[in-house]
Formats: sequence, C-alpha cells, structure tokens
Amino acid sequence: MLKPVYLTEDDAVAIIDQRRLPLEVVWLKLRAVSEVAEAIKTLAVRGAPAIGIAAAYGVYIAVKDFTEGYDAFYERFRKAKKLLASTRPTAVNLFWALDRMERVLKENPLLPVHKLVKKLRAEAVKIQEEDLESCIRMGELGAELLPDGARVLTHCNAGALATGGYGTALGVVRKGYEKGRVELVWVDETRPLLQGARLTAWEMEYEGIPYKVVTDNMAGFLMSKGMVDVVIVGADRIAANGDTANKIGTYSLAVLARHHRIPFIVAAPVSTFDLSLSRGADIPIEERNELEVLEFRGVRVTPKGAKAYNPAFDVTPSELISFIVTEKGVIEPPFSKNIEALLRNEDKV
Amino acid sequence: MLKPVYLTEDDAVAIIDQRRLPLEVVWLKLRAVSEVAEAIKTLAVRGAPAIGIAAAYGVYIAVKDFTEGYDAFYERFRKAKKLLASTRPTAVNLFWALDRMERVLKENPLLPVHKLVKKLRAEAVKIQEEDLESCIRMGELGAELLPDGARVLTHCNAGALATGGYGTALGVVRKGYEKGRVELVWVDETRPLLQGARLTAWEMEYEGIPYKVVTDNMAGFLMSKGMVDVVIVGADRIAANGDTANKIGTYSLAVLARHHRIPFIVAAPVSTFDLSLSRGADIPIEERNELEVLEFRGVRVTPKGAKAYNPAFDVTPSELISFIVTEKGVIEPPFSKNIEALLRNEDKV
Repeated sequence: MLKPVYLTEDDAVAIIDQRRLPLEVVWLKLRAVSEVAEAIKTLAVRGAPAIGIAAAYGVYIAVKDFTEGYDAFYERFRKAKKLLASTRPTAVNLFWALDRMERVLKENPLLPVHKLVKKLRAEAVKIQEEDLESCIRMGELGAELLPDGARVLTHCNAGALATGGYGTALGVVRKGYEKGRVELVWVDETRPLLQGARLTAWEMEYEGIPYKVVTDNMAGFLMSKGMVDVVIVGADRIAANGDTANKIGTYSLAVLARHHRIPFIVAAPVSTFDLSLSRGADIPIEERNELEVLEFRGVRVTPKGAKAYNPAFDVTPSELISFIVTEKGVIEPPFSKNIEALLRNEDKV
Repeated sequence: MLKPVYLTEDDAVAIIDQRRLPLEVVWLKLRAVSEVAEAIKTLAVRGAPAIGIAAAYGVYIAVKDFTEGYDAFYERFRKAKKLLASTRPTAVNLFWALDRMERVLKENPLLPVHKLVKKLRAEAVKIQEEDLESCIRMGELGAELLPDGARVLTHCNAGALATGGYGTALGVVRKGYEKGRVELVWVDETRPLLQGARLTAWEMEYEGIPYKVVTDNMAGFLMSKGMVDVVIVGADRIAANGDTANKIGTYSLAVLARHHRIPFIVAAPVSTFDLSLSRGADIPIEERNELEVLEFRGVRVTPKGAKAYNPAFDVTPSELISFIVTEKGVIEPPFSKNIEALLRNEDKV
C-alpha cells in the first residue's frame, strides 16, 4: 500500500515529493524539523491527514536526540510545534496531531526524557496507523452509499497521497470499485496546483480504476448531461454545524450537485472536526501566492503586470452536504445534533 | 482600436495569432483559404464573431483571382465555403457570415465575375464594420444594466480579440468602465486553453481596467463572499428560446449566479441567434482533443496513460439568463416571445 509519508528505521521522515508527481517519483528523507516544515509549506507533502502525520513525525525528530531535563525538553518540543503549526492555517488535522503529541508530554511529567522520546515515536507511528485504519473503515462505510455503476466525481486529491495511506474520498472510491460499484471516476483537475490531474489521476492509473480527467469548469456540464451519480470529496476542517472547508472549488461543486439533485458526500476522519468553531465562516482560509494562478507549472500564462487572487480553500455550508462519512459512522442531517452525538460517543470509547 | 483580424490592402487576411498571446504578439498574413481554415481550426483566430469575419475574408480570397464564368466561379466559392464551414461546429456566426457572402452571388447572377469579386470584398469588410458598430452599441446598452461600482465576473474572452473589435461581453465592460461603473473585473482563467488568463487579461492590461485573474473553480467562493455583482459572458449560438451555447464553464457560472441571486448577462450580436433550433439541446457541441486537458502548452501534467474528456462548449438554459444584450436592444424574459419580436422587427428594417 502506498504511504506518502513514513518514519524510516533510522528516524528520517520519508516523503514522496508530491510537487514532482506524476512525471517523477522522488522520495525525500527529511532529518530536521525545519525540513519537515518546509515540505508542508511547499506542498511536497499535502492533504489534511498526511500533513498531520508529517507534523507528528516532525516534532518527534525535533526532540529525539536530546536528553536534557523535562522542562528544557518540553521547551524544545514547544518551539518545534510552533514552527510546524505555522506552516498552513486551514487543515485542522495539523493542530490536532501536534496537540496529541503534546499530550504525551503533558501526561508524563515524571518520565525520564529518553522514555518520553520512545513514547513520542510510538504515538506518531500510531497516528499514522490509526489514520490508515480509519481510511479503510471510511471506505467500507462510504461504499455502502454508492449506487451500482456509480460515476463518481471527485475534486483535488483525497487519496492515499493525502493521508496515512488509502485515502478518504478515494478510499470510498477504492472500496466501491473493489465491490464492483464504481463504473467511472471523473477527476477534476483542480487548478491552480492540479492535485486532481497530477495526483488523483496517478492513483487511479496505479490502481487500474477507470477515470477521466476534466477541467474544473466541466462539472456542471457533466451533471446536466446525467453523467455524474455522486460527488465525493475530502475535508480540511469541519465546524460543529457540519460546514466543511476543503480545496477551492468544492463549494461550487456542492452548489452544482444540489441544483442537479446529486448526492454530495464528504469523507473525513473525526480528527477533521473542529468543535471550537460553531460554523464554517470562522475557519481561516489560506491565501497563497498569486503566481500559482498566473503561471501553469512554471509556464507563465498571463500578461506582464497581471494580478491574481488565490484563496486555497472554500467553505461548503452543511445544508449542501448529503452525508459526512467518518471512521466512526456515517453522519446525516441534521448535522449539528448528529455530529455532537457521534463525537460524544467517540469520547466515551 | 485593436482588430484581431482585417483584410490588408493587398488582400491578405491579417490575424493576430491568439495561440501565442499574451507573451508574444505575432501577426500572420494568410493568402490562401486553406490557411484561413487552419487558423480557425487551431484557434489562431477564435471567438464567434471573429471567426465569422475571418471566414468571410476567407471565401473572398478563395475566389478573388478567378474570372471564369458565373457557374464555375460559384462552384469555386461553394468549395471554399464548405471547407471553412467544416472548421468548427458550434458558433453559428461562422455559418451566418458564409451564408451572407453567398447571398451576394445568389442575388447577382447576371453580374460580371470581376464585379462580383468587388461586391464580395465589400460585403466581407461590411460584416466586420457592422460587427464593430454592433459591439459598441451593445456596450452602450449593456453598460446601463451595470450597478455603480460593479465587480464583473467574465469567462473566456468575449473581447476585441473575439470580434471585429471592441468585444461583446468586454464591450459592455469597456463602456461600463468608461462611464465609471466598473470597479473590478474578475477574469476566469478558462481552462483548458486559458482564453481568460491569456486574452482577457491582456485586453484589460492594455486598457488599464482593474482586474484579477482567478481559476475557474473560484467563482462560487467569490460569489458566496459577495465579491461579484454581475456575470457577463458572450455566446457562440443562441436558440430560439434563448438557450445559449458558450465556452465550457459558462453553464456552471449561470447555476452559481442563480444560487447567489446575481444577474447573469449574455452579450451577443443578432447574428448569434439560430432560430432554426427551438432549444439549446439541439446545438452541436464541439469536442476537442483530450491533449488540451492532459497537457498545457506542451507541458504534460497528467500521468502516462491518462484519459480526458474535452467538450469545448456547454449550453445555459434561458431560465438562468437575466438579460441578452444585442445591438438591437436588450432582451428580457420571456425569451422565446421577446427574441422573436426583436428579430422580426430586425427583418423589417
């Protein structure tokens, strides 16, 4: 199974450089937390769950070689955590994974530091393992929602590359295809960075799942012709009421799906929920460099002097969402109530 | 005033090579009808009105040097017309302009051929001049529909480059800006061929009209944030009921505009109407080479083996259109009735 990030036996953070896919498959071995931060910032590793995992490994390698006292050790951890938390603002899994790593320190103030280091390593690996299990579970639950012969439209890449392995939205596609329910995947190319054309297409090609790439502006046409049965996307952060931040363009798809009465499914692990935010309008939206729009894979396409706007995410209000598939169960409307119920149950487990 | 196509004094069809804009400004001088057909097919000249004009010049240069008898001359004309008509299927202005040129022959069977040649030249030039006048008139009529401080979103290029000069949708923008009503133009980049990022941005830059380029999938986000006051697009063919074929992605914008209660305006000369088609579903939609989606400017973005789908146009049902601006007046719903009334009136003039 393809894992876009893992910890090597000698404690390097290995990542597949997603900026260079699909034409080159290059693995990087990162040995400093600053390198991990840079890899997240520049999208060498991307996808909400995957950056959470990379960050967990990142704080681990930042502190693993130090054996000073608890306070100095914690201070070092905190600095690394701050650096990693500053890389990208929207996906909450990043902060969730870092907080989970910090809990190891908080809960073990009396443990010798070399034992803390071991515990941190185990926790980071566990975050990845749990994510993979979650994805497979989401795949099973989500596949049940697919009609037979489904033509699925997806946006960006919520696949193995975006997670600990297997994928969220593409996990549902994988499992659905395995069960013979998926006929075709429409892959939105997902400008400006083409995560669909580059990464999702690469995963579909790798798995032999039938797919066609389309430009983002073709979705409405496909729906109007009855060529799309269901839309499935991942998520970067979900507010308490179900409003969902995801890659720019997701909101347009949700409006189009509603107009054509096509189910719109979000697949995301429970670590994607941010119950501190009551609604999606409070989710911070990353704005990226305008050159990503003005250029196309480094080829300038706009005139000298051109300006662009480049929000990297948008928020889909929960009214436009049919189901949220998590590893703990499928959530249906009314979302506020049902999200709370599912997560409360989760806390008890 | 920029004209993307014109007839030189020595009877070459001069066109600005729109494939190479905005980074290079290269003019081509075409001296054979086959060259004109190739230029239309490969989008060196594009935009519904502009390809009508180029085709009119094309049939003229195909026959201008022949002085055989009427029947042989007509046969030569017909062959050239057939070649040009085969270049692109969707924009009706192409067929309209060719039919208008043929009418010169039909109506003057007794004229000496050298006089017919002169008449054909004059007719082709007149088609361009009338188109320019129409665009300016549409600009005036359309600008009246803009709110003060309008932030206008447009798709593809319906500008000077797409017409005899001045533009349809961008004619409205130009005139609106001149009147102080346009604050900002959101330029959809318009994948796969980036006519927005390349051509509309170039025209806006040239005119000093404030604009920002966005990827096509950002339109919904902009609308949800209240950053778009009106959407204006051109058209390639309008059926008798007002259903409008235009660049792929237009339909998605129309659905989004309706969802956000934003006016959606189509600007097109009356030559764009095809009353032989009662509804948009009958408009032929050009499908182009999948490489346009799989690559960009020769840069491969998708994995080896990838497949794509590439419809070049879509159809927006008239229910989603607020106004159709023509040079003869602004048409409001109910469109079937009002289109017929306007065009009947036009026939009388």
